[in-house]
Amino acid sequence: MKNFNYRIYYEDTDAGGVVYYANYLKFYERARTDFLRDLNISQSRIAKSHDVIFVVNKFDIHYIKPAKLDDLIEIAVKIKEIDDFSIVMQQEIYLESNLINRANAKIVSISNSKQKLTKIPLDIKNLLEKIPKT
Amino acid sequence: MKNFNYRIYYEDTDAGGVVYYANYLKFYERARTDFLRDLNISQSRIAKSHDVIFVVNKFDIHYIKPAKLDDLIEIAVKIKEIDDFSIVMQQEIYLESNLINRANAKIVSISNSKQKLTKIPLDIKNLLEKIPKT
Amino acid sequence: MKNFNYRIYYEDTDAGGVVYYANYLKFYERARTDFLRDLNISQSRIAKSHDVIFVVNKFDIHYIKPAKLDDLIEIAVKIKEIDDFSIVMQQEIYLESNLINRANAKIVSISNSKQKLTKIPLDIKNLLEKIPKT
Amino acid sequence: MKNFNYRIYYEDTDAGGVVYYANYLKFYERARTDFLRDLNISQSRIAKSHDVIFVVNKFDIHYIKPAKLDDLIEIAVKIKEIDDFSIVMQQEIYLESNLINRANAKIVSISNSKQKLTKIPLDIKNLLEKIPKT
Repeated sequence: MKNFNYRIYYEDTDAGGVVYYANYLKFYERARTDFLRDLNISQSRIAKSHDVIFVVNKFDIHYIKPAKLDDLIEIAVKIKEIDDFSIVMQQEIYLESNLINRANAKIVSISNSKQKLTKIPLDIKNLLEKIPKT
Repeated sequence: MKNFNYRIYYEDTDAGGVVYYANYLKFYERARTDFLRDLNISQSRIAKSHDVIFVVNKFDIHYIKPAKLDDLIEIAVKIKEIDDFSIVMQQEIYLESNLINRANAKIVSISNSKQKLTKIPLDIKNLLEKIPKT
Repeated sequence: MKNFNYRIYYEDTDAGGVVYYANYLKFYERARTDFLRDLNISQSRIAKSHDVIFVVNKFDIHYIKPAKLDDLIEIAVKIKEIDDFSIVMQQEIYLESNLINRANAKIVSISNSKQKLTKIPLDIKNLLEKIPKT
Repeated sequence: MKNFNYRIYYEDTDAGGVVYYANYLKFYERARTDFLRDLNISQSRIAKSHDVIFVVNKFDIHYIKPAKLDDLIEIAVKIKEIDDFSIVMQQEIYLESNLINRANAKIVSISNSKQKLTKIPLDIKNLLEKIPKT
């Protein structure tokens, strides 16, 4: 499990005075990207080297409490499941140690040139399996 | 069930060449809003008249095929369940009659001044229950 | 000159209760795209057929009055100047006939493969020059 | 002058493979907000304490070169002009020390309750005037 911090700016909020419901998915993707970046996995690089892109196939999200302008949120990312073709990541947003949002993302491995399901490159799968689950 | 059409512009896409995964939630909200607008239910008006706002509490989405720049998507909206405090709406995106995306949104009724769960105003609940489910 | 209408949704607003300042540029691009679409000019098609993409090089905007949730804005688009390599479009947003925002966009013609300035395809330039200026 | 760094994620890009033209305004606002935050000026706090909000009135931007996915951009912010009612901030984006984008933002001071022009609170004006211009 790894944690990442992001600031809430005006761009993230809506007229309800809180973060717009679709924008949580932006923060979740930043955290997944930074999680991979920390492992030295760059999505733009593996698109070139392995012809593989990681695409969200399913996503579920539970809005518990809203985040607001100027908040500094913390996102915890962990890998729940991994098989040859897909990864399930569990993500949680904390605000001052309180859980305010929870989500699960099922990511699939796609061949960029063929636009169809392909195996996760083995070196990347091995790297991901080595991460402690908690 | 009601259907609404939206155009895909550059703003909706990402460097993968398709609609960015969070942006489907924007189209889904446009469709829910237009669904309510067709019933003469304005969310900004009921915030003032009834002190009620409708907030997404849970959302799950299945990305089947991507939408692309210039596509004209069609969103079907229907009410799956409704009780005193919440509404579950099922939404589907079609591109030239093919299902490309499916989602369920659980909406809860919140008192704007108290920021806590409150009953859906009865006149609105009655209106929503009268809509044919298919 | 041509006019296009767009609805303001939650996604467009911010915690100030009005349309977020960057999002006006989204509406302006929708209007430029629909302006070209009305002339049967599709940007994704000319990228393929002519290897040309139109890119905003300079943009200035004056925020006169804000647009709000549920507003139906009208955008007027006209071509102010056109030469071999660039187009200046003047755009204005009206709300119930009141001018609320004004912008100028300088668009340049870029070769997609070479990523450098290239002449506007002659058939497109001719089409654009035929549009009445007012 | 102060500098701030931001990462480019998928959310910021479009199907052209580069940062979407409206999204530069989001990064510019993050930088202005962080510039003020460094001076211990919180916009949400002065809205409450002084009934003052800072609103962009005019903005001009020159797109020199694009930023791309995974880029780490650096934004330089400085105050060009300040009078009783408005501030002009000059902002520049650098990528590996190369200037890729430049903008000027004219910010006006608005009374939140009256929604009309009001003087910049004197303590804030004094703070801003003390910043070295270069």
